[in-house]
Amino acid sequence: MQTNKRKIINDPIYGFVTLPDDIVYDIINHPYFQRLRRIKQLGLTNLVYPGALHTRFHHAIGAMHLMSEALQVLKSKGVEITDDETRGALNAILLHDIGHGPFSHALEHSIVKGVSHEDISSLIMDDLNHQFKGKLSTAIRIFNNQYPKTFLHQLVSSQLDMDRLDYLKRDSFFTGVSEGVISTDRIIKMLNVVDDKLVVEAKGIYSIEKFLIARRLMYWQVYLHKTVLSAENLLVNILKRAKELSSAGTELFATPVLSLFLKNDFTKDDFIKKPELLEKFAKLDDYDIMASLKSWADGDDFILSTLSKNMLERNLYRTELQSEAIAVSYKNNLIDKAVKKYSITRKEAAYFVFSDSVNNTAYNSSNYSINILFNNGKLLDVAEASDVLNLQALNKVVTKYFICYPKDLQ
Amino acid sequence: MQTNKRKIINDPIYGFVTLPDDIVYDIINHPYFQRLRRIKQLGLTNLVYPGALHTRFHHAIGAMHLMSEALQVLKSKGVEITDDETRGALNAILLHDIGHGPFSHALEHSIVKGVSHEDISSLIMDDLNHQFKGKLSTAIRIFNNQYPKTFLHQLVSSQLDMDRLDYLKRDSFFTGVSEGVISTDRIIKMLNVVDDKLVVEAKGIYSIEKFLIARRLMYWQVYLHKTVLSAENLLVNILKRAKELSSAGTELFATPVLSLFLKNDFTKDDFIKKPELLEKFAKLDDYDIMASLKSWADGDDFILSTLSKNMLERNLYRTELQSEAIAVSYKNNLIDKAVKKYSITRKEAAYFVFSDSVNNTAYNSSNYSINILFNNGKLLDVAEASDVLNLQALNKVVTKYFICYPKDLQ
Amino acid sequence: MQTNKRKIINDPIYGFVTLPDDIVYDIINHPYFQRLRRIKQLGLTNLVYPGALHTRFHHAIGAMHLMSEALQVLKSKGVEITDDETRGALNAILLHDIGHGPFSHALEHSIVKGVSHEDISSLIMDDLNHQFKGKLSTAIRIFNNQYPKTFLHQLVSSQLDMDRLDYLKRDSFFTGVSEGVISTDRIIKMLNVVDDKLVVEAKGIYSIEKFLIARRLMYWQVYLHKTVLSAENLLVNILKRAKELSSAGTELFATPVLSLFLKNDFTKDDFIKKPELLEKFAKLDDYDIMASLKSWADGDDFILSTLSKNMLERNLYRTELQSEAIAVSYKNNLIDKAVKKYSITRKEAAYFVFSDSVNNTAYNSSNYSINILFNNGKLLDVAEASDVLNLQALNKVVTKYFICYPKDLQ
Amino acid sequence: MQTNKRKIINDPIYGFVTLPDDIVYDIINHPYFQRLRRIKQLGLTNLVYPGALHTRFHHAIGAMHLMSEALQVLKSKGVEITDDETRGALNAILLHDIGHGPFSHALEHSIVKGVSHEDISSLIMDDLNHQFKGKLSTAIRIFNNQYPKTFLHQLVSSQLDMDRLDYLKRDSFFTGVSEGVISTDRIIKMLNVVDDKLVVEAKGIYSIEKFLIARRLMYWQVYLHKTVLSAENLLVNILKRAKELSSAGTELFATPVLSLFLKNDFTKDDFIKKPELLEKFAKLDDYDIMASLKSWADGDDFILSTLSKNMLERNLYRTELQSEAIAVSYKNNLIDKAVKKYSITRKEAAYFVFSDSVNNTAYNSSNYSINILFNNGKLLDVAEASDVLNLQALNKVVTKYFICYPKDLQ
Repeated sequence: MQTNKRKIINDPIYGFVTLPDDIVYDIINHPYFQRLRRIKQLGLTNLVYPGALHTRFHHAIGAMHLMSEALQVLKSKGVEITDDETRGALNAILLHDIGHGPFSHALEHSIVKGVSHEDISSLIMDDLNHQFKGKLSTAIRIFNNQYPKTFLHQLVSSQLDMDRLDYLKRDSFFTGVSEGVISTDRIIKMLNVVDDKLVVEAKGIYSIEKFLIARRLMYWQVYLHKTVLSAENLLVNILKRAKELSSAGTELFATPVLSLFLKNDFTKDDFIKKPELLEKFAKLDDYDIMASLKSWADGDDFILSTLSKNMLERNLYRTELQSEAIAVSYKNNLIDKAVKKYSITRKEAAYFVFSDSVNNTAYNSSNYSINILFNNGKLLDVAEASDVLNLQALNKVVTKYFICYPKDLQ
Repeated sequence: MQTNKRKIINDPIYGFVTLPDDIVYDIINHPYFQRLRRIKQLGLTNLVYPGALHTRFHHAIGAMHLMSEALQVLKSKGVEITDDETRGALNAILLHDIGHGPFSHALEHSIVKGVSHEDISSLIMDDLNHQFKGKLSTAIRIFNNQYPKTFLHQLVSSQLDMDRLDYLKRDSFFTGVSEGVISTDRIIKMLNVVDDKLVVEAKGIYSIEKFLIARRLMYWQVYLHKTVLSAENLLVNILKRAKELSSAGTELFATPVLSLFLKNDFTKDDFIKKPELLEKFAKLDDYDIMASLKSWADGDDFILSTLSKNMLERNLYRTELQSEAIAVSYKNNLIDKAVKKYSITRKEAAYFVFSDSVNNTAYNSSNYSINILFNNGKLLDVAEASDVLNLQALNKVVTKYFICYPKDLQ
Repeated sequence: MQTNKRKIINDPIYGFVTLPDDIVYDIINHPYFQRLRRIKQLGLTNLVYPGALHTRFHHAIGAMHLMSEALQVLKSKGVEITDDETRGALNAILLHDIGHGPFSHALEHSIVKGVSHEDISSLIMDDLNHQFKGKLSTAIRIFNNQYPKTFLHQLVSSQLDMDRLDYLKRDSFFTGVSEGVISTDRIIKMLNVVDDKLVVEAKGIYSIEKFLIARRLMYWQVYLHKTVLSAENLLVNILKRAKELSSAGTELFATPVLSLFLKNDFTKDDFIKKPELLEKFAKLDDYDIMASLKSWADGDDFILSTLSKNMLERNLYRTELQSEAIAVSYKNNLIDKAVKKYSITRKEAAYFVFSDSVNNTAYNSSNYSINILFNNGKLLDVAEASDVLNLQALNKVVTKYFICYPKDLQ
Repeated sequence: MQTNKRKIINDPIYGFVTLPDDIVYDIINHPYFQRLRRIKQLGLTNLVYPGALHTRFHHAIGAMHLMSEALQVLKSKGVEITDDETRGALNAILLHDIGHGPFSHALEHSIVKGVSHEDISSLIMDDLNHQFKGKLSTAIRIFNNQYPKTFLHQLVSSQLDMDRLDYLKRDSFFTGVSEGVISTDRIIKMLNVVDDKLVVEAKGIYSIEKFLIARRLMYWQVYLHKTVLSAENLLVNILKRAKELSSAGTELFATPVLSLFLKNDFTKDDFIKKPELLEKFAKLDDYDIMASLKSWADGDDFILSTLSKNMLERNLYRTELQSEAIAVSYKNNLIDKAVKKYSITRKEAAYFVFSDSVNNTAYNSSNYSINILFNNGKLLDVAEASDVLNLQALNKVVTKYFICYPKDLQ
């Protein structure tokens, strides 16, 4: 029995990932988890970095692999971790993204407003725990930081969790942006636990610095790249328009499951009361969105068809990203042009011309700070421990403002 | 103008790919080419190697990049190649896969029987040449081996073409199967032209041997991996069943463009006579197939819904792959079980239990053999030139037989 | 105590190597082992591949790392391996090269004729075992194949031992010859033990094929590269000449320890009888050879100074490497030219013009063949198991003949 | 003729390096340059990172390769660079380290005090220019910043020169410290020239930030690693003692060329007046130092033999590295112990217990600042251009203090 489930999964990043436990194997084979094969980790980023097609499925397994290695390192240093806790931590990290819908950001701004992917994750975990007869209880307690050993939660969710370690490395690998490469191996070998808190031994300080800087660089070079912002906002607008039309009674082609969410406004409460709703949501993936969008490109509504066609042909908004707020007059001028050029109302013009801001903090000392353990036993927040780089600066929230508008408006 | 089109594309394999020419930029931005972003290079291989999600879009650009390097090397060795020929070769390789539909193999065995992707490629190239006012004429002549300089065609299509160099390297990278890693850099630096034929300088012989062996290993480890065969045949059967039902008048949910091809049997002649058909086909991508398939999983037809659900939940056929033909009695016994277990006819059982064969030749001396150029000017077929490995053996066609059946039948 | 010796060593190939045991730490810190820091793994190969400067020190630690991983994999599959056996296997692989002198090949053909590096290894291990109070007894038994569990010896020395796995990967990495890259991770995860014999599970067959082919390609592309042969033979001749002069009473500058071996002809018996001789030998490293050679370049003897200068300025022999034996007349003609050009005797001309042969077998079925374990429990020699490549061919001994002569002779 | 010199050199980092010009080939084959094969780039760093055995030879060729790529990129952007300038820049970077002795730092603090490696480089270049009949004149002018086109000098020597790009990448590769990995390919593709100054296009700003941070991390993790400092200072002390003894008339074993420099105190003036002195110096390499040191380990002088033995057996000083100055009392206490333990004078104790400081600035705005070119044509110092990281902080000089003493003193 056991050995049949000791599957090996190929990963171009780690080489080979061995599934360390039967329950891990069973979770991975559950339809809820298999759905993650059809949800890209980085949404529309592949329009800028064509290799970035990796999925939340691969990421979750990668993070589980790192968790397995981290637990082994900690045990070898004498940290007590029971078999139940090991399974709990492995399952918690495996399921940390289970509630993500396709293009989460876009969905949450248009189709399932008011229901976050964290809410859905929680509901799905409970459902799975029920199906697996309570075997996920420890995992859920660790995930929700309700388990006595805090460091286990930190491995799942903190500023130095296995989630971040995997996604930085993975996103860097598949985009080809070498700035994000980090030494997960090195960082993990330097982990330790002091007073129930995850710490990093002093020798690993440079790897941590590199990790924090890599993260910030990845934010600006990939996650908040202006063309990625442009594509994501285009999708938000497409879904908003589709929802607007559907709500107004227009019959739009859509896959059955997307159709349901286009025509109705479900609340978190609805999800709790009607379990079949969760099941429906758990069928939604990238294919529903893109296949429906493809048909809209040939539809009658000028706004919906134009935006959808722009997406398919990668005719994205021009985006200006800057440190200062967007001047109102500049924006108004562009709106005027859009109204005139496309013969639309000012309200409709918001689908074509809009502005917003994004921000990022590389490190946040106030929230589970990363502590460095020195040979003399002293602990120091990494931001203070480093005299090499000015890491204090990474505490700073960096905000950038952007405006999007069609290229032919200029 | 010019400089705006000198775009740089990130590729995790080559680092940076520079678009060498305006026409290359224009082709890449054409909707026909953008569609390739939505067609995975390796179809369902990601069910076995989860990283294998790369697209024909990325492959075509990678192959173009290698072509650009190969042309530069040849020019530096004194081979005369005009600017028009350079553009021709770049465009030819860029478009070599343009006619591929989603999951080509599956499609050609079910939906568009009798119309090969080569046929479609040819039609699309002609259409594009018309749109680009004849600028693709040289590319098309090179592609069809109608251009006087044969070596240009060999760079596009032969046993050592830029297509193979890129796909081996790319598939190896994204699957994580290191057996396929080849030294494209080294091979390209060793290329030369003698008597209008592409040759490899003697120093590169080991790289060529490695390339031939890598290719054979990739065939058995990836392209013809038994679980990949299982998944592909599952999709063939799903599409066959959907077509069968549609033809019989059953109304199935499907995206508009897939619907058209499910309900009709188009011939190559239809494609030639009705240009709008080509346009429709050029809208079909992975999303149409999977989104439609997803809805079928909830449908009424036992066969279609069972197979579709199996695909979504990665409940693939058990596949046995072997050197000897499948025993008829063994197969019949499994069919009997299926008939009984699922209460279906023997004819319907073919959707669940079936056998076939696959074969592969690593190298074929008779078809544009790879010639090694020795320092004394002598040319030798690589199969003869090598005294290190027994490359003659690679000429052999290796055939394997397989049978697929549901796991619960055993 | 323990933890202080849990050192981590950086390895650009494996990332981090953890020393798994105190005794491993102590051996590495012994002067006998530290000497390996000053002995290059590939002798003069850096004259062809400038990156190939890695040492036997690094290789031995790398092989120990792979051994540690292999033992862990086997244990996880239920193979019984005691702590004493673990330590024994680790120490055995760590010490497998301990008797190598600098440029072993050259030394054994000139300075310490009749005493092989295997002899020295054996003597050093016994000496160390004495110093470590018998703690190396198991290691020595495993090394000499006198330990009951044969598979432990196979991990140290067979056609699929940790030595080969590390050196292929390491030599490939540092030379930059990607043909030699192998998947050590994959191969090791596929190891198992059946009837006390090391076997490879069927899934790993392609990795083994890749490994055998990589090894053969590395032989011809690196280890027996004609310019490497040229450099090694130049060194052999330099040392022969130095020995010849020393024996005849000429006082040559040399480091004290090299001087001892230049002036005397020690036999294996001498080494056994005079322990201080072993101690002297264990001080000899690359620096003694090259530093002495450097001074010879400015010396009086025409032959010794010419050859030494040629080495320093990388003015190597021209080497012709071919499948047929060297024609006697061709060689004689070159000798005649040398005699005339340098005004030397025919006997002396042998320092300038000489021929020899080299050979290589990629795989040898008769000597601890590599066995593949199929799912049905059947074992097959890899040469028979593979229907993909013609591995039988790898059994063939390939012999090549070469002649060396100064470039200015032609 | 030409083609024979078009040699290809294997580099595990760049794959293949093509020698772009005959003169490059001729310089590389000159004995002065071949000597660099015997001088490790990172001195004794291999005692901490065992892979760090790469030589100045390999580095110089690597930097030449990057120069060749940079010049090609600039030409493709319309920057005018003549063939003579191309050759000049290639030769300048090739020769930029030609004057380095073995373990430069140690030598300049002991054997050739008052004569820097820059002085020697200059003398050797003049000598070579004489031998090559003036063909190096442009290279020398570029090297000395006497050539009108300043950007050529910047490519050879500035805060973003090809020297730094290569050594960061190379040192990172061979040590295995992934923190130093930089995207040389990306940086070079972003280079441009404005008003005769080298600039980086705005798109490359993240790569520059990564480069600056990588450099700082490499300083603390490798170049100024406390154990590396320990080893280097041990060598300085060994050579100081050897010189002290030699000056006092003690006859020490040493290779002829090292002997000369041990027995005499040459000034820069001596080097200018006696050309044969330069020739002697140009024979000194790592082998002279280590081979002589090896014999000293068996010598009579307690200090010299103890220190030499410590080096050979890697019994390095314990080193404490800290942000605050070393307390005088702490140091004195250790000296007292040394005096007592080894029965030596306080003056002699300085060979065993000593303190010093090291410092590093990652970036220096005042010295050829790195300028970022924005799309609007505006130029900004990278320290100001970046709003992402606090690069201003990199301007800061970081100083650290260290004390070394034998482990057995504590």
